Amino acid sequence: MRRLLAAGLALAPLLALPDEGMWTFDRFPADLAERAYGFRPTEGWLRHVQLSSARLAGGCSAGFVSGTGLVMTNHHCAHECIEQLSTPQRDYVKDGFYAPTTGSERRCPDVEVDQLVEITDVTEQVRRATRGLQGDAFHAAQRSVMARLEKDCQTSPEERCEVVNLYHGGIYDLYRYRRWQDVRLVFAPEFATAYFGGDPDNFEFPRYDLDVAFLRVYREGVPARTPEHFAWSPRGPAAGELTFVSGNPGTTARLYTVAQLAYQRDYALPERLVRLAELRGILTGFQMLGPEERRISGETLFSTENSFKALRGMFDALRNERFFRSLVAAEQSLRASIATDPALAARVLPAFDAIARAEQRLEEIRVRYAYLEAGADFHGELFGFARKLVRAAEELPKPNGERLREYRDSALPELEQQLFSPAPIYPRFEELLLGHALTKLRERLGADDPVVKKVLGKESPTELAARAVRGTRLLDPAFRRALFDGGRSAVAKSRDPMIILARLLDPYARAVRKIYEDEVDSVVKRNGELIAEARFAKQGRNTYPDATFTARLSYGKVVGWKEGTRTIEPFTTFAGAFARATGREPYALPRSWLAVRDRIDLATRLNFCTDNDVVGGNSGSPVIDRDARIVGLIFDGNIHSLGGDYGFDESNNRAVAVDSEAIIEALSKIYGASRIVEELRPTRAVTAAP
Amino acid sequence: MRRLLAAGLALAPLLALPDEGMWTFDRFPADLAERAYGFRPTEGWLRHVQLSSARLAGGCSAGFVSGTGLVMTNHHCAHECIEQLSTPQRDYVKDGFYAPTTGSERRCPDVEVDQLVEITDVTEQVRRATRGLQGDAFHAAQRSVMARLEKDCQTSPEERCEVVNLYHGGIYDLYRYRRWQDVRLVFAPEFATAYFGGDPDNFEFPRYDLDVAFLRVYREGVPARTPEHFAWSPRGPAAGELTFVSGNPGTTARLYTVAQLAYQRDYALPERLVRLAELRGILTGFQMLGPEERRISGETLFSTENSFKALRGMFDALRNERFFRSLVAAEQSLRASIATDPALAARVLPAFDAIARAEQRLEEIRVRYAYLEAGADFHGELFGFARKLVRAAEELPKPNGERLREYRDSALPELEQQLFSPAPIYPRFEELLLGHALTKLRERLGADDPVVKKVLGKESPTELAARAVRGTRLLDPAFRRALFDGGRSAVAKSRDPMIILARLLDPYARAVRKIYEDEVDSVVKRNGELIAEARFAKQGRNTYPDATFTARLSYGKVVGWKEGTRTIEPFTTFAGAFARATGREPYALPRSWLAVRDRIDLATRLNFCTDNDVVGGNSGSPVIDRDARIVGLIFDGNIHSLGGDYGFDESNNRAVAVDSEAIIEALSKIYGASRIVEELRPTRAVTAAP
Repeated sequence: MRRLLAAGLALAPLLALPDEGMWTFDRFPADLAERAYGFRPTEGWLRHVQLSSARLAGGCSAGFVSGTGLVMTNHHCAHECIEQLSTPQRDYVKDGFYAPTTGSERRCPDVEVDQLVEITDVTEQVRRATRGLQGDAFHAAQRSVMARLEKDCQTSPEERCEVVNLYHGGIYDLYRYRRWQDVRLVFAPEFATAYFGGDPDNFEFPRYDLDVAFLRVYREGVPARTPEHFAWSPRGPAAGELTFVSGNPGTTARLYTVAQLAYQRDYALPERLVRLAELRGILTGFQMLGPEERRISGETLFSTENSFKALRGMFDALRNERFFRSLVAAEQSLRASIATDPALAARVLPAFDAIARAEQRLEEIRVRYAYLEAGADFHGELFGFARKLVRAAEELPKPNGERLREYRDSALPELEQQLFSPAPIYPRFEELLLGHALTKLRERLGADDPVVKKVLGKESPTELAARAVRGTRLLDPAFRRALFDGGRSAVAKSRDPMIILARLLDPYARAVRKIYEDEVDSVVKRNGELIAEARFAKQGRNTYPDATFTARLSYGKVVGWKEGTRTIEPFTTFAGAFARATGREPYALPRSWLAVRDRIDLATRLNFCTDNDVVGGNSGSPVIDRDARIVGLIFDGNIHSLGGDYGFDESNNRAVAVDSEAIIEALSKIYGASRIVEELRPTRAVTAAP
Repeated sequence: MRRLLAAGLALAPLLALPDEGMWTFDRFPADLAERAYGFRPTEGWLRHVQLSSARLAGGCSAGFVSGTGLVMTNHHCAHECIEQLSTPQRDYVKDGFYAPTTGSERRCPDVEVDQLVEITDVTEQVRRATRGLQGDAFHAAQRSVMARLEKDCQTSPEERCEVVNLYHGGIYDLYRYRRWQDVRLVFAPEFATAYFGGDPDNFEFPRYDLDVAFLRVYREGVPARTPEHFAWSPRGPAAGELTFVSGNPGTTARLYTVAQLAYQRDYALPERLVRLAELRGILTGFQMLGPEERRISGETLFSTENSFKALRGMFDALRNERFFRSLVAAEQSLRASIATDPALAARVLPAFDAIARAEQRLEEIRVRYAYLEAGADFHGELFGFARKLVRAAEELPKPNGERLREYRDSALPELEQQLFSPAPIYPRFEELLLGHALTKLRERLGADDPVVKKVLGKESPTELAARAVRGTRLLDPAFRRALFDGGRSAVAKSRDPMIILARLLDPYARAVRKIYEDEVDSVVKRNGELIAEARFAKQGRNTYPDATFTARLSYGKVVGWKEGTRTIEPFTTFAGAFARATGREPYALPRSWLAVRDRIDLATRLNFCTDNDVVGGNSGSPVIDRDARIVGLIFDGNIHSLGGDYGFDESNNRAVAVDSEAIIEALSKIYGASRIVEELRPTRAVTAAP
C-alpha cells in the first residue's frame, strides 16, 4: 500500500493517464483509446455496448449475454437472492443452484435489472430552476425540477428515469432506463468457489474465484427478448490485449475538495470502520449460535466484511501524509489557475471555503444524521419497512416535486418492489439487528437525549427490539400492502409496535435531514457547480466525472504488476485453485470440483487482472474485447485498487476478473449446465449495432 | 466535546494552570497550592499521604484505610478478582460479596498491592551508561543499567523496584515499593450498583455509582499491619472545598512531539478503536450463548467497552483540527525558544526530526509489531502463559542485564504470580479469543505471510484454536510450574500444542521487537532526553511530567461546570439513583437497594465531581481533604476528561468520585457491613506524619 501511495505523488489527478478513466458513453474519448491501442470505437460500437450492458439496482453491474434475457453478473451480486430462495432444508448458497429448464428458474424477490437506453443533457433546465438560490430554496427548487424531469420522462413502471449529477454539478443528465423487476435465478455455483479464499483473499491477487451467476429477465411471465447483448468470445483474453469494461462504478472522490477529503479521512471513514468492525463481531457471534443462524446471517456478514476491507484500504490511502499532500497540491494548483482570471476567481474561489464550512457543519451533526436519518447500524428489514410506510403515508399526498426525493413518482416502482418483497425475514436475526441499532443509538446520542428517552422509555434496547419484532405484523407482505394502500390515516392509527417506533423517530430524523439538506448538501452542490464550471474553463472537458453508479466505459489491457521486485503475472489457472486449497474454509473447494478434478483441463485460466479503472459497483461488469465479445467478468480489484476512490495509479491498480474460458469450463465439466453453455455460444460472429 | 477543544486553544500546555498537574511527591509545588488555596502541605503531610496510598499492579490506584491492612479501591479495579472467585453457582459479580469475618475474606489470585516507600534520582547513572550511544547499543546499555539498579535495590520478593522515566528522559528515578501479593477480597457491592448506568453513563456526570470495593493485604497469613493509612472524614466534601487526589495516572501525552501526536491520531487510536469495536461485537455475541458465557466474559466485555469509550474521546480530541493546531503551535513556540540558543539548538532541534522518522518507521512495522509482539487481539490466558514460559526458558539463563526487560530479576515476583495464578480458565472462552486472534493475525498480515503459513499450515484459525485449547495442559498451574522449573530443555521438548504455537511465533515476534526497540523506541528515548533537557533549560523545572502509572498528587476543588448555558452541579444523591432507575440493565438497581429504600437517607450524597487532574490509572484513588482524611473515591472522569491525555482544561475537565458518606451509608444500611464501618471510623482525629 505504501508503494501505491508513494507513486500517487506522480499523479496529476485531473488529467487522464492512458488507461485511467470511467467515461460516460456519450463522451467517450475515442481519440485517447485509439492513440493508446490503435482501436477507435465507433458510435455504433458504443451504442451496442451500452445497450448490452445492465445495472442491478441493488448496487452491481451486469451484461446481457443472450437474446432471451440471460444476464451474467457475479455470485456476490446475486448472493442475497440466493440466500432468500434458500431454506433450512435447501441451502443454495452452500450447494449452488442450477435450473435445468427455463421452468425451474426461480424469481429473485428484490432484484431489478436496468438497461440504459437514453442520455439527455438537462443541465440548462436544472440550472435555470436554481439560479441565484441558496440553502433551503436551492434544495427545494432542485428537488422539484428533478422530480418533474424524471416524471415526464418515465411513462410506465417499465421505465426508470433519473437525473444524474456529473462533475459535482458540472453537468446534469437525464438517464432513461428500461427496467425489469421480474428477474430469475438461473445458475449460481457454491459460495465456496465463488468466494474461494474468503475475506483473507478478498481484494488480493493471484485469485481463484468462480464469482459468477446467471439471471434471466422476464416480461409477462416469459423470458424477455434482448436483441442487444454481448457475444461470447471463443477464447479468453491474451496478455496485453485491449480490454473494455462496461459497468456502473459506485462512487469516487477524485474531484473532491480538500475539505471534503479531510472529512472523509478524519470522520467518515474511521466512523464507518468502527461501526462495521463491531457489526462484524456481532455477526460472528450470531453465527456461533447454530447452523441456521449461520445460514441466515451469511450474506450480511459477507457484505460487512467486504465493505470493511474496502474502507480500510481507502482509509490507508487518505491518511498517508504524502499522498494527502499531493491532493492538497492539486487543489492549490487549480485554485492558482482560477486566480489568474479575476472575474472567475471572484465567483469561484469562495466556493472552496463555503464547502469547507459545510463540512464543518456536517461534522457537528454527523452522529445525529447518521443514526437518525442515514440508517447507521439500522440494518434490519422490519424497521426499514416501517420507516418507508410511515414516510410514504406522509409524502405521497404531497405534490411530486415537494416530496422527499426517494418518494417522488419516478422512484415508486423500486419502492414498491422493496416494500412488498416476499423475501423471507428472520425474526431472531431482526431482533439482533434492531437491538444493536437501538443500543448504538443510545450510545452515540446519549441516554439523556430527548429522542432516546422518548423511544426507549423505561425499556432497554434489547427489550424494545424484542417487543417490536415479536409484536409486529410487518413480516407479512399483505399487511405492508394494506398499510401502504391505507395511507396516512391507516399508518397514523396503527398500533403495530414497529410502526410506532418508526413514527416516534421520524420527526427527529426529518429535523436533522433538513439541516443536512439545507446547510450541507445544498451548499456542497451549489458551490460544486461553480468549481466544476471553473474546471471546465481551465482544463477543458476532456476529463471524466467522478463515479455516480451510472454507466461508464473503461479501456485498458490485461497486465500484471510489480510488487517490489516480484512480478505478479496476470493469469491464474484451475491448477492454482487446487494447489491453494486446504480443505478448510475459506480454502475448501466444493465437492463438485473435487469430484471432477481429473476431467477439468487444469491449465484453463481461471482469473486474470487488467489495468481497467474500476471501483465498487463495477462488480459484475462484462470485460469485452474490441469486437465487444465477452472475455471475462469483473468481480474485484487488487489491494492497490482501494486507493482508487481518490486517484488512479496505472502502475499497480488492477481490476480482477473471471476468465470467460473458466466459466465455460466450469459450466460444462463441473456443473453440467449445458443449457447455459449452448445459450452463451451460438457461435455468433462479431456483432455491430443494429 | 467541541467546547472542550475550542477552549483548549487558550491553554499553554506547558504551564500549569491553577488546578492542573499530576505532581510527583518529591517535587510537589507546595507554593502553587498555597497560593491557590491557602494551604501548604508539609513534608510530613506529603510523606504520610504517599505512604497511605497504594497502587494495584494490574493498573489501578487505592488507599490504605485502616491499621490492619484494609485497602479501598473501585469495584471495577477488583472486578476481575470478583469474577475469578465466582462460580456458575455463586456469582459475586452479580450478587456482591461481603466477608462478615476476617476468616471469610477470599484471596484474589492475581492482585498485587504496592506501597511506594522511596524515590531516588538515578538520572546520572542512567545517562552515564548510555552516553554517546544510539539504537541497539543505547537500548542494550539502558536495559542493562536499569536491570542492575533495580536488582541492587530489590532485596526481597516483598520489595519491588522500578526505574521510572519521567519527562520522557528528563529524569530517571528509582522507585522502591513494598509489595503485597496476598490480597483478599473483603467487600464488593453488586455490579448493578457499582456500574449503574453501564456503558451509556460511563464517563458521564451526573452519576450514581457505588463503585467501591475493599481488599485487605496479608502477610504470613494474617492481616498486615499498615500503620500509615488514611483516616476517614466524618463527612463528605463541601462544594468548593480543596481536595487532593493521590493516585497513579496511567499515561498522558501532554509532552509528546507533534510527530508522536500525529501517529496517535492517524494510526494508533483508530486501529485500536477498530480492534476494540470488533472484539466488543464478538463478546456481545458470545454473551448470547447463555448465562454462563455471559458470566465468564463479563469483565472482559466491561473493560473492552470502557477502553473503547475512553479511546473514542481521545480520538475526538486529537482529530479536532483547531485543537491539533494549538498543539502544533506549542511545539513551534518551544522550538523557537530553543533556536535562540545556537549551541542548544544545534544539539536539540534535530531530535524532533529524529523522532518524526522513528514514528514513520513505527508506521511501517506497526501491524506486525502489534500482532506478533504487542499482543493485539491476543487476549486469551493460555496463549499468554505459553508465551511467558517459552520466553522465560530462553531469557532466564541469560545475565540479568541482557534479558528482555520483563524477565529481569526484579520483575520475576510479578511474573510468577501471573504464571502460577490459580484463577479459573474457561476453555470455551479461550477458544473464542484464540480463534479471533489467529483470524486477525491472518487478516492483517495476509494469508501468504510466512509466519501465518507456518502457524496455520492447512488448519483454519478456529480449528487451530480448538486443537490448541483442547489439547493443552496449561490450564493446570502445576503443569505451568513444572515447565517453568524445567527451563529451556523442558520447553523445547514440550509437545503441548499451545507451547508449540508460542514457540512457532516467537522468532518472528522477537525479530519485529528488535526493530521496534532499536529503530523506534531507542530513538524516541534518546532524542526525548535531549528535548527534555531543552525544556528544563527554557521553562525551568516547575512543570509536572507526563503520567507514567506512578504515584502522583493532584490538588483541586469540588466544582461542577457549565455545559453551554446549563450548569452541572457537583453532587448527586441516593434519591437521584432511584429516580434514574428503570428496572432494566444498566439502570436496574439491585434488590438490596430496593429492599431498604425507605431506610436510606435519600438526601445522602452519592457521587461528586472535582477539577482534580486525573486520567485512567487514577481509578481507586482516594480523595482527601487538607487533613488527609478520606472524603471520596475517584472512579471516573467526565466526557471532557477524555481529552486530558493531551491537555487539561480546567473549565470542564472533571474527576468523578464516590462520596465517603455514601460509602458509609451503603455499608451500614444496605449491606449490613458493620465490621468494615467500625474499622473505617475509629473516630481518629487529624493525622500527621509519624
